[in-house]
Amino acid sequence: MGEKLVGACVFGQSGGPTSVINASAYGVIRTALDTPEITKVYGAAHGIVGILNDNLYDLGKEDAYELQLLLNTPSSELGSCRYKIKDEKELQRVHEIFEKYDIRYFFYNGGNDSMDTCQKVSDYLHRNDYECRVIGVPKTIDNDLVGTDHCPGFGSAAKYIATTVAEVNKDARVYDTGAIIVIEIMGRHAGWLTGASALAGLVGFPPDLIYMPETPFEMEDFLDNVEAIYKENNNCVVAVSEGIRHADGTFVAKAKVSETDGFGHAQLGGTAARLAAAINHRTGAKVRGIELSLLQRCAAHLASQTDIDEAFLAGKAAVEYALAGETGKMVAFDRDTKDGAYHCSITIQPLSVCANMEKKVPREWINEAGTNVTQDFIDYVLPLIQGENERVRESGLPRFAKLRKIKATANS
Amino acid sequence: MGEKLVGACVFGQSGGPTSVINASAYGVIRTALDTPEITKVYGAAHGIVGILNDNLYDLGKEDAYELQLLLNTPSSELGSCRYKIKDEKELQRVHEIFEKYDIRYFFYNGGNDSMDTCQKVSDYLHRNDYECRVIGVPKTIDNDLVGTDHCPGFGSAAKYIATTVAEVNKDARVYDTGAIIVIEIMGRHAGWLTGASALAGLVGFPPDLIYMPETPFEMEDFLDNVEAIYKENNNCVVAVSEGIRHADGTFVAKAKVSETDGFGHAQLGGTAARLAAAINHRTGAKVRGIELSLLQRCAAHLASQTDIDEAFLAGKAAVEYALAGETGKMVAFDRDTKDGAYHCSITIQPLSVCANMEKKVPREWINEAGTNVTQDFIDYVLPLIQGENERVRESGLPRFAKLRKIKATANS
Repeated sequence: MGEKLVGACVFGQSGGPTSVINASAYGVIRTALDTPEITKVYGAAHGIVGILNDNLYDLGKEDAYELQLLLNTPSSELGSCRYKIKDEKELQRVHEIFEKYDIRYFFYNGGNDSMDTCQKVSDYLHRNDYECRVIGVPKTIDNDLVGTDHCPGFGSAAKYIATTVAEVNKDARVYDTGAIIVIEIMGRHAGWLTGASALAGLVGFPPDLIYMPETPFEMEDFLDNVEAIYKENNNCVVAVSEGIRHADGTFVAKAKVSETDGFGHAQLGGTAARLAAAINHRTGAKVRGIELSLLQRCAAHLASQTDIDEAFLAGKAAVEYALAGETGKMVAFDRDTKDGAYHCSITIQPLSVCANMEKKVPREWINEAGTNVTQDFIDYVLPLIQGENERVRESGLPRFAKLRKIKATANS
Repeated sequence: MGEKLVGACVFGQSGGPTSVINASAYGVIRTALDTPEITKVYGAAHGIVGILNDNLYDLGKEDAYELQLLLNTPSSELGSCRYKIKDEKELQRVHEIFEKYDIRYFFYNGGNDSMDTCQKVSDYLHRNDYECRVIGVPKTIDNDLVGTDHCPGFGSAAKYIATTVAEVNKDARVYDTGAIIVIEIMGRHAGWLTGASALAGLVGFPPDLIYMPETPFEMEDFLDNVEAIYKENNNCVVAVSEGIRHADGTFVAKAKVSETDGFGHAQLGGTAARLAAAINHRTGAKVRGIELSLLQRCAAHLASQTDIDEAFLAGKAAVEYALAGETGKMVAFDRDTKDGAYHCSITIQPLSVCANMEKKVPREWINEAGTNVTQDFIDYVLPLIQGENERVRESGLPRFAKLRKIKATANS
């Protein structure tokens, strides 16, 4: 245990939401509320923006049952932000707010940009001799954080994607007239989510082709591949990352397509719509583009219980590590499969390892042609999508947490 | 009971799939297999097309457990078609196949077009003194069949839509920077599915505006409404039917938009993408269009247990009515709420009542402005989305039925 540090804590959420980010929130909040040396538990409205604006919630005033429902509530319950600390003045403002509320523990839940925020805050406070323990809690459906085996949020999105691709693929094959479907999946720079579509193959309905940002995209090869499969099977289902790009690094979703397929005015569509148009132009087949859009990051109704449990534990561990004296670190996961089964143990990494870095899918987990993932990839993802969440329902619909969100005052 | 009629039966699936169409298939198949006077149970590959092509499966050769898994398997397991009987010659061909296999019972599962097929087959066989009992089994997520309180398939799609809209709406509100979301929902002519998005309000996240095909769409009014809500709340979520149309009857999804919003080249997008572009043009806000696309009709992982049960019973009842001597009829649902609770009883209607007709949402269930549904609409839909399906899973993913689909021969 580190030296005992008595004071308040603040918790914030940052970046894109996930189905389980609030499970990490519950891990932090519940554990902090149950810890005597943490005198107050504050929530930042919209992450660091709420701290800069002195907009904090007093989470000690929440109902215990509603807090527990955070385990099954998607989106970022305290509000999120995409805000990068700009300058010393802002860090000074954070310091000022921390002093005002006697905040001695800062827990920040987000991806690599958020870990950068953590690092800056941590460094600044340290330089200014303000004792505060700063711990990052990882979160991202993109699974691209360095320093951890995987990220909370990824398993649930992967489960949603694999399930949905299986269902859509099955649906796509019902007619005798044939069809081609292009499913667009999130991931600007890494193909973890798109690769997860391959798990639909475990129930008999894999995509025929998978394109990820890790390998360069060649429109002609793509059209050749789709056409060949369509000619053979009368059907073809393709999963593509929104972030696929040409060899010169430009996104397929931006321009380029217009020169090769004759559809030049596609301000409205994304990658799937553009590829669907190009395929239709080439094959004349019935083609449908489907974007999984926000659904893949907020479909808590299909969350992986493994992911929920791990997200909760990550939040809880953040508080425990801080109490033990750690600071300037991010909670991380290690995977142990020595006995053949999947075990996840919780560890900690310096923020500097994680901040601003991106972990891509290893090239050896993608097939030679860049059109599918390997068994190693599937074995990596499979344990993360296990377990059905028995969520609380009302009227046949999910029952989300309803927090009171009472604004904190320094003397409350 | 009608006169005892001994012979084979054939079952076919037609039109767009639903999450529960295979539950009706199981109702027909299981009941028929257990009925002594039904000597053989055939499945038509791709509906009436399979009959015309002499492409039938011998469903007596299927494993009982796999058949039971049809209760939880989306898509149309036997294959579907969108095929209208063209002429007498085709009806003669149907007659010929029925004679070849001694088919005395024809069960056809579909929407209003499929009921038209049923009717034509029924009339033809009757005129030609071939004894065969023909019963339609209703199916459509669109809920637009006349003669029945509601249709199997609608409840599950409605549950998916309400759940998804609640989740997306919650997600849409996480940032401090504001957002507008347009969610496009199926329904070319009727707004039942789009109206079901209002049920997200039962858990606190209703769409702000709902536009259905039943009322004419005015682009300027629409943009005014969205802008006003966005200005007040910094957020706006809109649900629109794919089939909304202008006062002159033209679809918003086709042309028109180009003249009013300056976005003329939208071959790639649907209604949501076009409206999103128009809103962005007007407000400058961050706008996202989301199409629920095929997901809303195949998301069996979120099927309503009430819908599954009713779909099964509809299939079972088709066989029972036929055995009792009925023919030229469609199974239908009556609703009884006299004791304040929802009860669904099964009845039967002449095919002529249902064929080729469309049931729209009553105008009085839509608000004056044409931007939302009334409480009566919500009360109508709510019982249909109740009950969670405990589906069989494998590797954390849904386990679909795997049928052997052994081709039938007349003497097998």
